[in-house]
Amino acid sequence: MPRKQFSRIPRHIGIIPDGNRRWAKAHDLDKKAGYDYGISPGFQLYETMLKYGVEEATFYGFTQDNTKRPKAQTEAFVKACVDAVEILAHRDANLLVIGNTNSSVFPKELLKYANKRVHFGRGLINLNFLVNYDWHWDLKQALNNTSMYDHIASADISRIDLIIRWGGRRRLSGFLPIQSVYSDFYVIDEYWPDFKEEHFVEALKWYQTTDITLGG
Amino acid sequence: MPRKQFSRIPRHIGIIPDGNRRWAKAHDLDKKAGYDYGISPGFQLYETMLKYGVEEATFYGFTQDNTKRPKAQTEAFVKACVDAVEILAHRDANLLVIGNTNSSVFPKELLKYANKRVHFGRGLINLNFLVNYDWHWDLKQALNNTSMYDHIASADISRIDLIIRWGGRRRLSGFLPIQSVYSDFYVIDEYWPDFKEEHFVEALKWYQTTDITLGG
Repeated sequence: MPRKQFSRIPRHIGIIPDGNRRWAKAHDLDKKAGYDYGISPGFQLYETMLKYGVEEATFYGFTQDNTKRPKAQTEAFVKACVDAVEILAHRDANLLVIGNTNSSVFPKELLKYANKRVHFGRGLINLNFLVNYDWHWDLKQALNNTSMYDHIASADISRIDLIIRWGGRRRLSGFLPIQSVYSDFYVIDEYWPDFKEEHFVEALKWYQTTDITLGG
Repeated sequence: MPRKQFSRIPRHIGIIPDGNRRWAKAHDLDKKAGYDYGISPGFQLYETMLKYGVEEATFYGFTQDNTKRPKAQTEAFVKACVDAVEILAHRDANLLVIGNTNSSVFPKELLKYANKRVHFGRGLINLNFLVNYDWHWDLKQALNNTSMYDHIASADISRIDLIIRWGGRRRLSGFLPIQSVYSDFYVIDEYWPDFKEEHFVEALKWYQTTDITLGG
């Protein structure tokens, strides 16, 4: 089993699959065409994570800020998210879509999966998918509640051990601020549509070298 | 002027000066001795930031989680924070100490500076210093308030453009989750007591290559 190669597998991995538009540009395509090339890498990574025994993964779909982009691009990444979920429905994952559904950009096709966990097939991995996510919105759910920070909208998404970002940018871009406070952060310079299993393995290798102190 | 060397200077920089204990170990010293060697680099960096025209900087002092460390270490880093502020009081900065003062580990000497901005000398830079900071505590201040996320305890600390972390770890470790959502993150492998001005310049050089999209 590949997982025997490593003494530590991060239980929960955050995935920031960035670089779709830069990839399209580098391939002389319309920027909006890049998103469609991002779906197949997502399923390659899904298979890879099953193989290595990752228990939970959170994919950054799109944010409310992202929808300020040109309409054709917004339509393209929304469609890619819908297509990805429709393919996933035939696989073996427990899906949790987190995002603000009170907005016209939230795709109607995904309403039935929103803000509650849905079980597909043998449920081999917990997959969280941020769709029209906004960190303000996430935290505001807690603020409207009189009690505690575990009432944030994403309270069912657990602490993240490792965040892998494709596309070379070294930032969170609003990705789950609460769950990311102690995450190790690994950046792959290649664009997301050029995903290779080696990227993931390289991140795992690096993860072996990190310690876990949680500030202690 | 050194600042002319760069077309973009981050307005607000986050500083995670990590590696004091590993530095002490590498120098055959007691772990707790490392913190004292972290003060002088802090003032070198302060001078460097003034030279480059940085308007605001936030230093990670210590967190509530850090105080779970052995008593001798806790006493040593608390003392280093107090000493640093006492030196700073003779310089030219507007100091804002943010942290939970309802705790015996919050140093009494810093109570007079806590949770409000204090002006020293000519006030050439806004310096924020996290002392007994805890991100749960920070957000809970907003939750106890009926309105909005701008009531977090650290609401007076603005969005961070660039975070520089010394000591090689690639994570936020609970550093201001709200202000860090769009920050670019640069890691220096050397330990904090080995601070050199070149580290900062290297981070600025890298910062020139990043874009600022805020998700758009």
